[in-house]
Amino acid sequence: MSQADFSPEEREAVYRAIEARRDVRHFRPDAVPSDVLRRILGAAHHAPSVGFMQPWNFILVASEDVRRRVRDTFEQQNRGQLQQIAAPERKELYRTLKLEGILEAPLNVAVTCDRRRDAPFVLGRGPWPEADLFSTCLAVQNLWLAARAEGVGVGWVTILDRQATAEVLGLPPGVELVAYLCVGYPVEFRPRPLLEEVGWKARLPLGPLVYRDQWGVPSPLFGEEMP
Amino acid sequence: MSQADFSPEEREAVYRAIEARRDVRHFRPDAVPSDVLRRILGAAHHAPSVGFMQPWNFILVASEDVRRRVRDTFEQQNRGQLQQIAAPERKELYRTLKLEGILEAPLNVAVTCDRRRDAPFVLGRGPWPEADLFSTCLAVQNLWLAARAEGVGVGWVTILDRQATAEVLGLPPGVELVAYLCVGYPVEFRPRPLLEEVGWKARLPLGPLVYRDQWGVPSPLFGEEMP
Repeated sequence: MSQADFSPEEREAVYRAIEARRDVRHFRPDAVPSDVLRRILGAAHHAPSVGFMQPWNFILVASEDVRRRVRDTFEQQNRGQLQQIAAPERKELYRTLKLEGILEAPLNVAVTCDRRRDAPFVLGRGPWPEADLFSTCLAVQNLWLAARAEGVGVGWVTILDRQATAEVLGLPPGVELVAYLCVGYPVEFRPRPLLEEVGWKARLPLGPLVYRDQWGVPSPLFGEEMP
Repeated sequence: MSQADFSPEEREAVYRAIEARRDVRHFRPDAVPSDVLRRILGAAHHAPSVGFMQPWNFILVASEDVRRRVRDTFEQQNRGQLQQIAAPERKELYRTLKLEGILEAPLNVAVTCDRRRDAPFVLGRGPWPEADLFSTCLAVQNLWLAARAEGVGVGWVTILDRQATAEVLGLPPGVELVAYLCVGYPVEFRPRPLLEEVGWKARLPLGPLVYRDQWGVPSPLFGEEMP
């Protein structure tokens, strides 16, 4: 192999980044240094992409005005979401959750997918038109893991008005907002996901999610976990 | 912080997994041991997901019959793609590319998104309905990076008839195929992406892909790379 294998310690570091990564909503105000930010974005840029299309752009949003306008769309969407929860105790729990850090984080990063890039023929995208959006998601996960290894927290905000946010960011037609991220040093990396910790939802056992050859056919791989 | 920081060596290992990961299409036939496979799937399962929904399932496809039927849809789609390339030299280059390893790899893994899970209310998905599909992509990237750290290669095949493949796998309505992966030990991890190596497309410089506050406004972050 042209790349040396990973030592047990190196392998362990990769798993630790994966397992210790958190969706962060509580940030300290200190800025992420430029060299750290360049490394994190470099990691995103090394994601796989359909036809090596590299369809992503990264909009670094420091402007308080832009962030306030995005946060307004969060507030409005979040009120709507709250109204959709029927059970009173779930509604109350939802109300206590901090679901974004748009203004507290020193930086927001909008990750976009330029679906016009390399048009008309992108190798591999024809039969699977969302493959460029999916590639952009892979870049987000690279960014997220690199950030964790740098001690930087990332939180993905989905409770937004996407159309309004795209307008605030000036996205042209053909460019789609894939992720809106809050980025900065976290108050802490909690041991478990917040939604697990507060009892919103438990982590699922993995075994029953794994099938063999066909949907619904149990795989023996995690046999010891199966009921 | 509740998690110790990463040492420089650990951080470097994370970046190395990210940079040395490849889309593999040439596999050796030896099986991936069960414990390795469990760790890789465990990494996927630790991806972030909207509302901690964990919408993924993993179908481990070893059956040669199933793989042949999936590969038939590749052949048919690939012929159609070839016809869409106008320039003769690009067409010839495309023809020489190996774009899947469905039968050579000892294992295929279909990664699906169960959009019915936790219905009707998934925290954070209301305003962004594709967030469950995007979460599943993050799981794919975790899987891919963990595999790289284990010395295991992964190749994502998008040139497929998705509907036919979903039928072959028996996916019920509401479950969407997000990724069809070939998994196994690679003949090699090449130093560069194959599409870059053969001259299909170059890696883009990152600097011009980074904007500040608004689409199209250059960021000074990679100033030295800008033209």
